[in-house]
Amino acid sequence: MGKGYCGMYETTAGKRLQQLAERPYDLTAPDALTAAGRLERYVCRAGSLRMLYSMQRVTDEVLAALQDLADECRLVEQFKEMRKGVVINRIEGWPSENRQVLHTACRDIFCQNPAEPAATAQAKSELEKLKNFLNDVETGQVCNVDGEKFRTLIHVGIGGSDLGPRAVYEALRAFGRKDRDIHFISNVDPDDAAAVLEKVVLKTALVVIVSKSGTTMETLANEKLVCQALRRNGIEPRHHCIAVTGKGSPMDDPDQYLRAFYMYDYIGGRYSLTSMVGLVTLGFSLGYEKIVEFLHGAAEMDLLAEEPDIRRNLPLLLALLGIWNHNYLGYPTVAVLPYSQALHRFPAHLQQCDMESNGKSIDRNGRKIAGKSGPVLWGEPGTNGQHAFYQLLHQGTEIVPVEFIGFIRSQRGEDLEVAGTSSQQKLFANLLAQSVALATGKEDRNPNKHFPGNRPSIVLIGGSLTPEVMGTLLALYEAKIVFQGFAWDINSFDQEGVHLGKALATRFLECMTGGQSQPESLELKLLEAACKTG
Amino acid sequence: MGKGYCGMYETTAGKRLQQLAERPYDLTAPDALTAAGRLERYVCRAGSLRMLYSMQRVTDEVLAALQDLADECRLVEQFKEMRKGVVINRIEGWPSENRQVLHTACRDIFCQNPAEPAATAQAKSELEKLKNFLNDVETGQVCNVDGEKFRTLIHVGIGGSDLGPRAVYEALRAFGRKDRDIHFISNVDPDDAAAVLEKVVLKTALVVIVSKSGTTMETLANEKLVCQALRRNGIEPRHHCIAVTGKGSPMDDPDQYLRAFYMYDYIGGRYSLTSMVGLVTLGFSLGYEKIVEFLHGAAEMDLLAEEPDIRRNLPLLLALLGIWNHNYLGYPTVAVLPYSQALHRFPAHLQQCDMESNGKSIDRNGRKIAGKSGPVLWGEPGTNGQHAFYQLLHQGTEIVPVEFIGFIRSQRGEDLEVAGTSSQQKLFANLLAQSVALATGKEDRNPNKHFPGNRPSIVLIGGSLTPEVMGTLLALYEAKIVFQGFAWDINSFDQEGVHLGKALATRFLECMTGGQSQPESLELKLLEAACKTG
Repeated sequence: MGKGYCGMYETTAGKRLQQLAERPYDLTAPDALTAAGRLERYVCRAGSLRMLYSMQRVTDEVLAALQDLADECRLVEQFKEMRKGVVINRIEGWPSENRQVLHTACRDIFCQNPAEPAATAQAKSELEKLKNFLNDVETGQVCNVDGEKFRTLIHVGIGGSDLGPRAVYEALRAFGRKDRDIHFISNVDPDDAAAVLEKVVLKTALVVIVSKSGTTMETLANEKLVCQALRRNGIEPRHHCIAVTGKGSPMDDPDQYLRAFYMYDYIGGRYSLTSMVGLVTLGFSLGYEKIVEFLHGAAEMDLLAEEPDIRRNLPLLLALLGIWNHNYLGYPTVAVLPYSQALHRFPAHLQQCDMESNGKSIDRNGRKIAGKSGPVLWGEPGTNGQHAFYQLLHQGTEIVPVEFIGFIRSQRGEDLEVAGTSSQQKLFANLLAQSVALATGKEDRNPNKHFPGNRPSIVLIGGSLTPEVMGTLLALYEAKIVFQGFAWDINSFDQEGVHLGKALATRFLECMTGGQSQPESLELKLLEAACKTG
Repeated sequence: MGKGYCGMYETTAGKRLQQLAERPYDLTAPDALTAAGRLERYVCRAGSLRMLYSMQRVTDEVLAALQDLADECRLVEQFKEMRKGVVINRIEGWPSENRQVLHTACRDIFCQNPAEPAATAQAKSELEKLKNFLNDVETGQVCNVDGEKFRTLIHVGIGGSDLGPRAVYEALRAFGRKDRDIHFISNVDPDDAAAVLEKVVLKTALVVIVSKSGTTMETLANEKLVCQALRRNGIEPRHHCIAVTGKGSPMDDPDQYLRAFYMYDYIGGRYSLTSMVGLVTLGFSLGYEKIVEFLHGAAEMDLLAEEPDIRRNLPLLLALLGIWNHNYLGYPTVAVLPYSQALHRFPAHLQQCDMESNGKSIDRNGRKIAGKSGPVLWGEPGTNGQHAFYQLLHQGTEIVPVEFIGFIRSQRGEDLEVAGTSSQQKLFANLLAQSVALATGKEDRNPNKHFPGNRPSIVLIGGSLTPEVMGTLLALYEAKIVFQGFAWDINSFDQEGVHLGKALATRFLECMTGGQSQPESLELKLLEAACKTG
């Protein structure tokens, strides 16, 4: 390790890109989007997805330099090494997590020769356990003490154990069983648990507690709140609670839990959706077959990510276009805007996955990096956003590159023609129109009706948001984030930045309970300023 | 109008701030947060809220310059003029909306002499209509054809007619009637309506359609989808549907709607929460008394916003600190992070209100502005975010000023001590800890455990999130946004930036339906690139 890696800042291609960025392609020129067959050529297909990128400020020359950057930084080779189990979650020369990064192993179950056989064997074993468990729940072999079937699942977790499962559950609700419902508790805010517990019939509810370490403060507190509610209802928690945790963690305890499903230290929380962290809950809602389809979609993208030609490697191209916008054109944020209400929580999941992975300032040798690492990622669904923050996207002083996501067909097929077109047609037309409007802008004598244009976007398109397509989309973004981390030469797999706040919170809690604080401590003073009346 | 206004770029104070920004206060120095009684002095109280701002990179000198800026730009005077009904939604010398801006009139109902009596009289009249209507629904005088009481409300709207009502409904669910439920449909994505219609008992459902113009494409399409579902269930829509619309709009039609509540052209969608846009739905859930408390909280903040001393005017100070961070320290985004799960959609509402208001590039005389206008606003609740994007906040290369919001007590009072502290204590301790950690940072020999600090935040604190406090918080942010717009000398009340996308969407729809498009048009080519198989 260490040998052979380099950040993009030191590459020849990086310097070339710097030059090219001085005169980026002008999207507002006449026929800028269609010139030289650009519209047809700037399409990248991968499995069930395609990406249109004619609305980026790139030329063939820029793409060639991005290809060189990918090659010089060995991005695809590093991705292959990751999949094979090289220990890449580390900082050379400093104490660090020193782990493999193997979320891809969870879905590498469809080929004869998985990239890392041991991890895939573990994934298959957990999947088999889950299949049997789901079957037992279905047949009633696993049931409550009165022999009633479980109809509800309460998912308790936070961060990586919450955002992903929640986003995909919401995305695939159209495929979920109508006789089962799912609720999520994440925040240590006691109102979060209280609001859920108020509306759930606990008697027929399974509770899935998700924490790799088995010590996550929020999750343990919420587990206790749920268990208290179970006991108040005369229910013994160990008959309803399932642990998703690391093998040997404090939660890996058959006396306390009905079942334990395992997660392994080679999968970080934010990449754990295709492990038991996501699959237990998704399986309860969707059934076993559909979660296998979901895994299949992800597996397909993982393989496509090994293609060396950036024009054929969708996640790599998406990553490089992001780098072009962020590092070379200087845009500090990126918006992910799905034209699909079902994806309404997907940007929040990506926000975590991207910003926790790539919000770093040192490289894999512990040196301060020379330029920018990850951008601020944010987003809400369209067309809703068109009636909200798009004003700034079109005419504001901040320029925000956009990643649009849309589908040709709706999930549920319930639609109606109004004024000659269906809602789905209106949705899709608006998606394309926004991308063009941002790119081309519009001259107008009235300065308030002037649109400057040259605001780049890509459009990701799928046929319909099925479990399989959801898996593909997820793996696309996971790989994008990983590629960008490789290019910046950072460790995208640790999260040292979360520890200081935790340590300080402990000090505040000690103050609150009259513990070890000094009389003149910052904590005491701040608490007084925050809470004193008058 | 026009006369007497100037943007901050031309002011003496603006130039002074530019100088001061070259050496902003160092929050990482020993005792930086507590020095010179700063922690106690840098607290601004307003009604039921207080703001701690010792964790900003400001000094008394900076605050004095910000005061000068406020005075030179006549920010408070302009706010007073707005409340009195001066026509400020306009661009001098160009065709523009030319309207008053009177969202504050909706809650100026508690004093004898409202700032703009005519608008407040209209607000009172609508409020009285609503009171009677809610009473009739309660007693069953208004009921379905079978004499059953309405138990469900479906709110159909988008943008300003959706995000605000939804955010506040979620925020105040703890106070909502348990025997009634509310659902929202906003997106033109047909799956949005289908998902709601699948789970609602339409027989006892009111449908509130919200559109000022009565012509909003998404809302009309969704209204039609809902009406189709009503008819399929043998229900005549006009017995269940309520219009919230402009007087005289196509929706102001007693033959089609059970009732019409009016909104007026002097209230923009994103500022319309305290008009009938929010109150009909909130009233159905909370009851009339609680929406009056909500209005009372907002009214209180509107009055406080007229205080000329920035240290006593919370919205003005919040606005100016935002300007310091955005225009002088150069941070392009701002995160609003509520430590309250109930506020989980409040950042999305603020995102709209702020970015649609202040995402502009020309001043009120139609000239390109010299510097930056509104930042990108984003956010998710804590502590959830701590396990997600906070890594970037602490150690990323992008610096994000944060506005934390927290409460001393939970809403529901259901809590439990785990490891010696309640969940509410843990929540609040984490809130304060994050603000300190961002500010002070931490030295460490291990570069991966080094926190640079100097990342500014404010902490807004309330006792508990009641309807009244929610009103105060809403009006605080509305006033903040308005003050910033005044300082940038932009028109925060129009939204010309939304029109180009709409026009282009129409062209795409014409293409899709084989309409007027040219054979070689951009639209046709893009549609082909987007949809063609293979």
